[in-house]
Amino acid sequence: MAELVGNLLVAQSGGPTCAINASVAGVITEAGKHEFIEEIYGGLNGILGILNEELIDLNDEKSKAIDGLKYTPAAALGTCRYKIDFKKKPEKAAQDMDRLFEIFAAHNIRYFFYAGGNDSQDTSHKIHEEAVKRAYELRVIGVPKTIDNDLPHTDSCPGYGSVIKYNATTVMEVGFDVASMATDDGSCCIIEVMGRSAGWIAAGTVLAKRGNPANPPHIVLLPENVFEADKFLAKVKETVEAYKYCVVVVGEGIKNAAGEEVGADKTRLDAFGHPVLAGAAEELKELVQGKLTTKTRTVLLGYAQRAAAHCASLTDVTNAFACGEAAVRAAADGQSGFMVKIVRNAQPDGAVKWATGLQPLADIANVEHFVPKDWISEDGFMPNEKFVEYARPLIEGEVRAPAEGGLPKYVVLEKNRVEKKLPPRA
Amino acid sequence: MAELVGNLLVAQSGGPTCAINASVAGVITEAGKHEFIEEIYGGLNGILGILNEELIDLNDEKSKAIDGLKYTPAAALGTCRYKIDFKKKPEKAAQDMDRLFEIFAAHNIRYFFYAGGNDSQDTSHKIHEEAVKRAYELRVIGVPKTIDNDLPHTDSCPGYGSVIKYNATTVMEVGFDVASMATDDGSCCIIEVMGRSAGWIAAGTVLAKRGNPANPPHIVLLPENVFEADKFLAKVKETVEAYKYCVVVVGEGIKNAAGEEVGADKTRLDAFGHPVLAGAAEELKELVQGKLTTKTRTVLLGYAQRAAAHCASLTDVTNAFACGEAAVRAAADGQSGFMVKIVRNAQPDGAVKWATGLQPLADIANVEHFVPKDWISEDGFMPNEKFVEYARPLIEGEVRAPAEGGLPKYVVLEKNRVEKKLPPRA
Repeated sequence: MAELVGNLLVAQSGGPTCAINASVAGVITEAGKHEFIEEIYGGLNGILGILNEELIDLNDEKSKAIDGLKYTPAAALGTCRYKIDFKKKPEKAAQDMDRLFEIFAAHNIRYFFYAGGNDSQDTSHKIHEEAVKRAYELRVIGVPKTIDNDLPHTDSCPGYGSVIKYNATTVMEVGFDVASMATDDGSCCIIEVMGRSAGWIAAGTVLAKRGNPANPPHIVLLPENVFEADKFLAKVKETVEAYKYCVVVVGEGIKNAAGEEVGADKTRLDAFGHPVLAGAAEELKELVQGKLTTKTRTVLLGYAQRAAAHCASLTDVTNAFACGEAAVRAAADGQSGFMVKIVRNAQPDGAVKWATGLQPLADIANVEHFVPKDWISEDGFMPNEKFVEYARPLIEGEVRAPAEGGLPKYVVLEKNRVEKKLPPRA
Repeated sequence: MAELVGNLLVAQSGGPTCAINASVAGVITEAGKHEFIEEIYGGLNGILGILNEELIDLNDEKSKAIDGLKYTPAAALGTCRYKIDFKKKPEKAAQDMDRLFEIFAAHNIRYFFYAGGNDSQDTSHKIHEEAVKRAYELRVIGVPKTIDNDLPHTDSCPGYGSVIKYNATTVMEVGFDVASMATDDGSCCIIEVMGRSAGWIAAGTVLAKRGNPANPPHIVLLPENVFEADKFLAKVKETVEAYKYCVVVVGEGIKNAAGEEVGADKTRLDAFGHPVLAGAAEELKELVQGKLTTKTRTVLLGYAQRAAAHCASLTDVTNAFACGEAAVRAAADGQSGFMVKIVRNAQPDGAVKWATGLQPLADIANVEHFVPKDWISEDGFMPNEKFVEYARPLIEGEVRAPAEGGLPKYVVLEKNRVEKKLPPRA
């Protein structure tokens, strides 16, 4: 394979995580090892910024800052939820694609890496196909990222291990708190976590049990299961009777038998047309207090869970970095149209060795991966041993960001702009 | 002062924190140094458990477990919200007091330490007065504890430094997250923190700014100030225009001009007759999305914030331990009827040396300490430099609990019961 001389562009998309910057650090680090990769550019706010020719020069950043990306949460390059949507807006999408390849040509971009979830892998796939169609020599590799852990074919998604480490730690700590207040009246705490349709995030909190049924969480409500109020209330009652307290974890997207989201605000839609969700825990609280008169409080972790770099998983961040490196290696080797995937190699001693592989983007885009049915208890309220075996290695190891004045010292990039060469976007 | 031979009883009360166990560890450690203090007992679930003669033998616990209390959140002895209320229920209170002194006499309790907030210091004060009245030789010292930081006369309250370290870290991290998603539309995140009437907890998040006005939090709403919707909305708008995003921190107890709590559920009351609060952030979100159409999300930290031992302040935990030690030293010296207070000694080099002192319980009980008016900016939306100077030293240093399988390894006491000597409570 002939060495393709040209510039590299990396960008981030979708909801931030505390491991997505580690992937960018991996891309930059590996790119520096290949002489035919000349400039290393970052696109600001994903495809949206790239369409506006908002590029920054990553070779201008201090090497200390690049290293700091490994423990800095959120998207250091900025992110977006912009989608090149050939189905709903074919004309706009065609215009966007033309503009994108003008930008690529103007800056001699020959390597493109896009870190994101399902929608972003779809975007990468379309860009790869367009490059082939236009005979523009471009190597496109998708870098997996999503706390939702719902990308297919990869063992897990960078960002997921950290979010469940933080959430499981929180469930443990809240459990200690509620248990220590539990007198004969009993009390309940409902913790709402992210997860619109796949329950990976909620399920991951089972790790807080550490093998003891008495430990919280006592009930985990996954969006994969139909929510049945009566069964739920019976389970809360049973738990409070047994332990004097009950910690419930609920994935934000749980639905009733009619398919309606519990606590969804149907009057507001996000950019992709999904209803805004924020009320599952509050609705369950009303239910428990109303029907059982058990004192109930809620915790809504929201953005805090996906940004909690102070409690990141070293395994997760290491895998995220490796995905960035592997993407560049694959492209340097002449590959295009793939997503990097994480591969787990279980060792005879129970340890796990991690590797990376490649999967055609065509297999990834818009396919959602759910928690397998046989990884959940029969009553549907708790992930089982199979899930625990899967999830436990993902939270191993602590990332220790440097501290300053009692707070973590995260990195902010200088973001020196690359000079624009094109007129503004129409 | 003659050495008073007898047994010691320590108990915990009110809302748990991640430093209150460190105070108990301090009590136990110091008590072990005084031969005339014979047995070291813990009361389960505060006064409530003591009235039921539910005592445990702390000398039976492994020394490793006692050491582990320094980094274990919540109340290891259990806590309660039970109040001996001479005002509202004088007959019941008199009965309780009789029962309490029967328990003390039956177990030869001569040293009593109660870790808690305002209500608990009031309880300690009454027990001290009763002992004097009954000529029962008992040394009572209150140990300060409350994330609310609203006890008077002490520099700060154990538990407070840790809660603001965690909350400020969360605000920083959420800030990175929201900023990285901020495109031209702008976005807003509202983080609700605890604090019913004093705004210390909300105010503490100002530390996340690290001296930079552009950094979050951009607006801090304290319960001490009247909430005015128009001024708040104008400030959000101004902030989004300047930075494309806005992070708001709101203390749960903020009130409007009519004195009504914003987002309070007036249909439900807690054990002390206060309305249950949980809705300030949600109500502000409705306001911002409705009036400004800025995309807004909420975070409700709830119990997670006061239980977050994984992000505890070493300064806070060290002070909490020192308060426990100082309480026993004072009692061993013959003192009774005092609360231990934390004393700050600012050094010429800007560092702080911490010490403890004693304050009569009569000065403490039921007095609430608020954030001084001149520690808040003129527009009321931000604590100023004076507050920062006060709060910064409280979050210094990291507590590193041992980890196991990627989660913190907290301690659970064995709780070997002391044999009951009295008939059950009437």
